[in-house]
Parts: sequence; C-alpha cells; structure tokens
Amino acid sequence: MSDPVAQPVVKEIPPKAADLSAWYTAVCLKAELTSYSPVRGCVVLRPYGYGLWENLQKHLDAAFKETGHENAYFPLLIPESLLLKEAEHVEGFAPEVAWVTHGGQEELTERLAIRPTSEVIIGVMYAQWVESYRDLPILINQWANVLRWEKATRPFLRTMEFLWQEGHTAHATADEAREETLKMLEVYREFAESVAAVPVYAGIKSASERFPGAVETFSIEALMPDGKALQSATSHDLGQNFAKAYEITFVDADQQIKHAYTTSWGMSWRMLGAMIMTHGDDRGLRIPPKMAPIEAVFVPIVRKGDERAVEACRDAAKTLRAAGFRVKVDDRDQQPGWKYAEWDVRGVPLRIEIGPRDVDAGTAVLVRRDKAKGDPDQKTSVPLDQLAQHVRELLDAIQKSLYEEARAFLQSHTVRVAERDAFLRACRERAGMVDIPWCGTGECEARVKAETSATTRNTRPLEPGDATCVACGEPATMRAYFAQSY
Amino acid sequence: MSDPVAQPVVKEIPPKAADLSAWYTAVCLKAELTSYSPVRGCVVLRPYGYGLWENLQKHLDAAFKETGHENAYFPLLIPESLLLKEAEHVEGFAPEVAWVTHGGQEELTERLAIRPTSEVIIGVMYAQWVESYRDLPILINQWANVLRWEKATRPFLRTMEFLWQEGHTAHATADEAREETLKMLEVYREFAESVAAVPVYAGIKSASERFPGAVETFSIEALMPDGKALQSATSHDLGQNFAKAYEITFVDADQQIKHAYTTSWGMSWRMLGAMIMTHGDDRGLRIPPKMAPIEAVFVPIVRKGDERAVEACRDAAKTLRAAGFRVKVDDRDQQPGWKYAEWDVRGVPLRIEIGPRDVDAGTAVLVRRDKAKGDPDQKTSVPLDQLAQHVRELLDAIQKSLYEEARAFLQSHTVRVAERDAFLRACRERAGMVDIPWCGTGECEARVKAETSATTRNTRPLEPGDATCVACGEPATMRAYFAQSY
Repeated sequence: MSDPVAQPVVKEIPPKAADLSAWYTAVCLKAELTSYSPVRGCVVLRPYGYGLWENLQKHLDAAFKETGHENAYFPLLIPESLLLKEAEHVEGFAPEVAWVTHGGQEELTERLAIRPTSEVIIGVMYAQWVESYRDLPILINQWANVLRWEKATRPFLRTMEFLWQEGHTAHATADEAREETLKMLEVYREFAESVAAVPVYAGIKSASERFPGAVETFSIEALMPDGKALQSATSHDLGQNFAKAYEITFVDADQQIKHAYTTSWGMSWRMLGAMIMTHGDDRGLRIPPKMAPIEAVFVPIVRKGDERAVEACRDAAKTLRAAGFRVKVDDRDQQPGWKYAEWDVRGVPLRIEIGPRDVDAGTAVLVRRDKAKGDPDQKTSVPLDQLAQHVRELLDAIQKSLYEEARAFLQSHTVRVAERDAFLRACRERAGMVDIPWCGTGECEARVKAETSATTRNTRPLEPGDATCVACGEPATMRAYFAQSY
Repeated sequence: MSDPVAQPVVKEIPPKAADLSAWYTAVCLKAELTSYSPVRGCVVLRPYGYGLWENLQKHLDAAFKETGHENAYFPLLIPESLLLKEAEHVEGFAPEVAWVTHGGQEELTERLAIRPTSEVIIGVMYAQWVESYRDLPILINQWANVLRWEKATRPFLRTMEFLWQEGHTAHATADEAREETLKMLEVYREFAESVAAVPVYAGIKSASERFPGAVETFSIEALMPDGKALQSATSHDLGQNFAKAYEITFVDADQQIKHAYTTSWGMSWRMLGAMIMTHGDDRGLRIPPKMAPIEAVFVPIVRKGDERAVEACRDAAKTLRAAGFRVKVDDRDQQPGWKYAEWDVRGVPLRIEIGPRDVDAGTAVLVRRDKAKGDPDQKTSVPLDQLAQHVRELLDAIQKSLYEEARAFLQSHTVRVAERDAFLRACRERAGMVDIPWCGTGECEARVKAETSATTRNTRPLEPGDATCVACGEPATMRAYFAQSY
C-alpha cells in the first residue's frame, strides 16, 4: 500500500504508511503533544497533549463515579519489605523498580520503591480499614503517576514514568470481585470505542501474560496500522492472593473471619498512543471530536482593509462556546493556508472558514479534518445562524466515521487461519489479529513467540466446530488472537 | 476560653479549644479524610478527603483557565546536575530531596531527585520551546505530587509527599512577570476567602522567607485558632534568575537576544488543613458548602412499619441532584441520632430530616451544621416542593456565615502594638497577627525569632504616621505581620 518514494505532505512528517514509527514520533512532536526531556525514559506532556489526557480523565472519571467508585490518593513510595510480601508480584515488578536510598543527606535503613503500581500500599491500607462485611465493597480509584524502569522512550507507548488511573476494589465474595472485574473491562471497552473511537477486542489474557499476582487478567486490545496489537487497558481479578499477603480480612455475616477478594484495573496514557496511531494520516493527527481539546477552529480570511471576518469569527465562536463547544479563533497574523496546515497537523476535527463573501452572505464554510481533500463531503457552506446545529451534526458524523473506518480496518485485518503454516506466516507478517482455536498451553505460546515474535493478545471461549489448536495440533480449549504487539 | 475539664462532645475527638493539635488529628482521622500510612511522613488521602481536594481543584483549575493558563505534565525525576545549576535554589532544597540511586538491578551513574518543586525541569523545557518573543508568554500549570524529606507527619500540614499545583510562566518583560505574580496571588486570595471561607492577609515575604531563587515572594497567610499563622499559598517573581541558570532566551522584536522573566506559584493540600482548623468545632468538621463533597445529607426517620420517609428522602434527593446539588441519602439501618453525630463529624453543611409527620405534611426539617444546638436559626421546617430554593439559600447563608465568623476572629486577633515589650509578649503568647511598622532587616527578624519563635508572615507598605520599627527602634521601611507559624 505504501509508495516507496512518497513525499511527505507536511514537512517533518514522513508518510504514515512508509514508516509508522517515524510518522508517530514526528506527529507527537510536531503537534506539540509531547517533548523529550533530559530525563532518560521520560517525556513532557505539553498543553495540547494534556488536553487529550484531560478529556480521557473527564470521560473515565464520570464512568467510574457512575459505577459507584470514589477517588483517593495513596503514597508514591513503598517500603521494600512491604513489596516483598506478594511473591509473584515482586518477581514481576522488581526488575522495573526505581529505588530511593537517600533522603536529604541521610542514607535510609530501608529502600523505598517508587510505585510501579499500587496493589501493595493499597492492600496494606484496606487491611486497616476493613473489619466487617459492612465495610465491603471498597470501590476506589486513583489518578496517579507511576514509574517502571525502562530505557527506550516512545511518547505514550513506552516511557519510564507515565500517567494512569488504577482502580482497586475489595469484596466479600469471589463472584462480586469477578463481576467488578468484568464491569470495569466493559467501562474500558466503551471508552475506547465510543470516546477514543478505537475498536478493541475484549478477552482473557493467557497465563503467561497475566498480571503478576492475579487469578485472571482481562484486557482490551486494539490493532495498529502496522498490524501490531496494542494492549489498551487491563482489569485483574486478584482472587484472595493480595488479601492473604496483606491480611485483608473481615468478619462476615456468619461471624467467620474471611479474606476479602480484590480487583485492580488500569488505563494509562498509552490509550492516547493507540488513538493517535489509529486515526492519524499523512497530514498529521485526526482527533475524534469527543477527545479533541479543540473541536473546531475558526480561520478568518482577511482581505486588505476588510477585517470583518475576524469579528464574525469571534462572534460565532462566542455563540458556539455558549452552546458548550470547545472552539478557538486563530487570528494570528499568518496566511490562511499556513494555518490550515497547522490545524491539520494538530488534528482539530472541524475548521470553520469565514471570508468577506461569507460575511456578506451570512455563511461559513465547514471543513472536515477526517475527509481527504477533494472528497465531496469535506466542505459545506452553512448559514451562520444555524452554525451550532451544523457543527453538532458534523462532529457527530466525524466521531462515527473515524470509528467505522478503524472498525473496518480491524475487521479486515482479523485473520482466521486453519493451518499451522498459514498461521505462522500471518503472525510473522503482521497480518493483524490472527484468530485461531488454541490449546491454551504456555509451551505452545512460547514456541509461536520464538518462531514469529507473536503472542496471544487475549482469549475467549471456543466456537462450535473448533477442535484442534492450529498452532500445535493438540486439542483446542479456547479461541485466541495472536499478534505481535507494542 | 477553654474549660480545663471539658468532656469531648464526640468520643475520640478532644475539645478543640483545649488542645487544637489533638483535636485536629482526631478530626482528620475520625472524619475519614486521611489515614496514616506505613510510609514515614506520608498519609493516605481517603475518598472523603479527596472529595475536598477535587473541589479545590475544580475551583482553582477554572480560575487558572479563565486567566489563560493551560495544564501540562513534567517528569517526576530531575537529574542532579540540572538541579545544581541554580545555586540558591539547590541550597534551599537539597536537604529536603529524596534521591533515586538504583533502577531495577542497575546503579545509576547520576542520582535522580524526586521533584521537591519543578522550576528546574520546567526551566530546561522552556529553554527548548522558546525562540522568539512570539512564543511568550508561556502560561502553564501542573497538578502534581511533590516530595520534601520530612520526619514529622501531620495530615495536610506536614507530610513528606503532598499534592499541589504549581504554575510556571515565562514572559518577555519584568513588568509582565510581576503582573502575573500578583494576578495569581489574587486568584489564591479569592479562592481562600470565597471558596474555602478562610480569610487571609496577602503581602510580600521578607528576604529570609523568600523562595530560594526568587526575586520576590508573595503569600497569603491565614490565622489558626491557636494564634499561629498558616501560609496558604505563595506566588514568586523569579526575575531572570532561573532564565539565566537554564538559558531561557528569546529573540525580541528589536532582534536582541534576551533572557525571559519567569514566575511560579503554588497552593497545596495544606489549604485543606487551614480550612479544617479554621471552621471545625467540638462536634467535628464544618465544611464550607462550596468545598463540601456532600452539601446536604438526608436522614429519614423511620417508625416501625412506616418506611415512607425513606422514599420521600430518595425522591427529594433526586430533585436536588437534578438541580445540581451534591446530596446523599443515609438509609443505613442505624438510629437517626447516631447518623446525626456521624454527619456532624464529617461536617456536612446541611442535614435534611424527613419523618412520618413530615411525609404527611409535605415538609422537611433543614438543620444547619454551622449553628450550635439550640440556636433559633439551626432548624427550619420547609415545604418539600420548595426544597431546592431553601437549600440554595441556606447553603449560601452557611458559606457566608462561616467566612464572617473566621473574618471576625482574624480581625479581633490582629494586634497593633506600639512598644517593644508588648510586641514581644504578643508574639510569645500567640496573640495572633502582630502588626507593626518594621525595619525590614534580617537581623531584627532573627532576633525576634530567637526571643519569641515568631517570624514575619508578610509585609506591605508603611501607613501614614509609621516611623520606627517596633521591634528594634530603627527607622521603619514597611509594615509586617509577625506570628508564630505552622
């Protein structure tokens, strides 16, 4: 699909199809989402990028509160002795932990870990808070920074420090904990698809991909344009593992002392990376309206001595703002074409042009970012006094269209194969989500990984007719998506 | 004023006037604002406490955006070599820094500081971003956790890790930077007084109390019931100090390369501590309505076999929620009196009681938390169909009344003295804000501190008639509030 000698549409942004990785980095920098920092592995989230994060927060936070969760904040630092109590957990995270050894001039008697995740410190607190079944469930979320030692740096996708939310709940029964785990997985799926417009597959992670210390890990997985999958959120049923390690016990209604069942679930700024890669094009970002810091940008077209367009833009912007839209007027002293290119790079869903003739006619030209130049739906002229209604309709249409485009890509790149050779080839060539009946064993998964770099992304129950594992020929126990992944 | 054998009104909460410190700690724990954690110096902000923080964030964030600021996020870790570039700054903060020396198994070649504040890392980034005067001003705020090594732990007031916001701006001229510094000081004053209902004095810090690296530091200072002042926010004019250390230069309109002028300003969760101490009473918290996670709590009074009050509460709560109020129905299986005491501890501004007779009459009883038992204004019976209007009026009245009560305390405890002996005695005895004409010298300030533990809180211009410094007899150059402080 890619043209080997393609010229970039925007200087400094290489064509997306030719080199997704170079395109991605260029867009993140050029759209001023992020900057590299002098701290290895850490990026700066610039205001426009933080605007994306704020919209993610706004939508997820509302969904958490609607499902009965409250926010809280727990310490950044975790004493080493506490971290060591859950064996699988510490084994999984120890190689990634940054250690504080000195405070001021003083050397500490015990090292403190910067949280890579907060199950440990939250487990310790829940043990203090919970006495009776009446104290359950505890439904808490935390918005926080976490840190996992990491040498590579790719904005949003691979950074040492990242922003995320982590939900942590405690329940009286295993059923309630499982129900919570699945409920939050669904909150993530709904957010990814309806807000970020990124279609995903929800399912169960294999044992080797499970969160350290979990009984079962669920995930949503998106597919990037290069055929690699991107895990976009996880939800863990922790069973009684953490409750036993951190002594979260309660007196049940039957007067017996029992261990609680806990869950945890998280989505990070990685989701923004998935959204950027999914929708962007050779002109830069294409941000789904619900996530856009600026939904529409006004560009006045000024003829010498006729500044009326600037006033008309300001008036119309005021009207849209009052109607709840996030809009901006670009009244800088630059050529319109220069502004168009800049707002294209930044992925603003809708551009509103008003020139002298529009002022005379009482109209504005709406230009959709999601449509290509020359597409008959790209531009529409509308009466200024019906602007809000048209903007609403077009933003809704853009949101829907971006999702459908991405959904069509995911569907056309979900590959069902029935033979081992075709399976391995599809995995190696990044054909997309390679969907097979699977035996479910770690050995089989490891062999596929060694041969193709692909791993299971997530799994689900068998379908009628599924019999043997396409990868190894043993009896199939589940369906799995295999793919190389970020 | 305090009764030496006072019995606590609420078990576990000592009388406020007898021992403010013990009262404060008990209230923070008993109202479930915070918990102590197993990490020395760190507390957990529990959901109800986090609800206060969310309301602070909501109001301040809106004020920042109205004044043209955007949010961003910068790395938690700062390489030691960068920290060393601004000499005064590092001298001020080095004793308080937590150092990361290991990542995973690896020992780092350079230590990384956990940010005690972010002037350094932000200065480095601004140097990269700014090229021309067209790139200025930069108006950025960050919501973040910071860490300053600290052994004592008092919820909100003294913790190693704390939540705050820090604004960082860069400007082309000294005048613009000073204007910004004062504008944000006013945002803080307005928030403290109009939202947290905490009256403050705004002014200039003395040289010894200045932020390390600043040209001038401004603060707002509140007065606690024990006569100690509490610095509630600061705003710093950093001049060109950080711009020179971190090379924030720009090409001005006159084609000259110049250093920018920067500012920084911050408010932390300390403000919540000021609010708690200012308004609480022997029954627990009294939260100003604008800050209250729950503005009104419904307590149904159920007679055996008559559950109609529960339904009536739920219906009324639904109506209030639809009108934008934050309300809760307490339908737990407990006695009403037990619930009253609990919501009193938690400081919910308004309690709404509905019993069987109210259901028959279509009324509800509104009980103000800010008024004492027996006060004729404490309880009002109102028709249910006018509930929203009465709740609005009472919440406004409570907000106003809490502020006025605190304002009267600050005024009656602002002491003007004309003689040295009376001055030192007022400082020693924590008479409040001790207001004198002052010479402005560090020597005089140090002597007063040695003799009384009091320091200058902030300063302002002399008034007509001021001649000599009350503390030392030298010519006065400014007015200053002296007080012992948190």
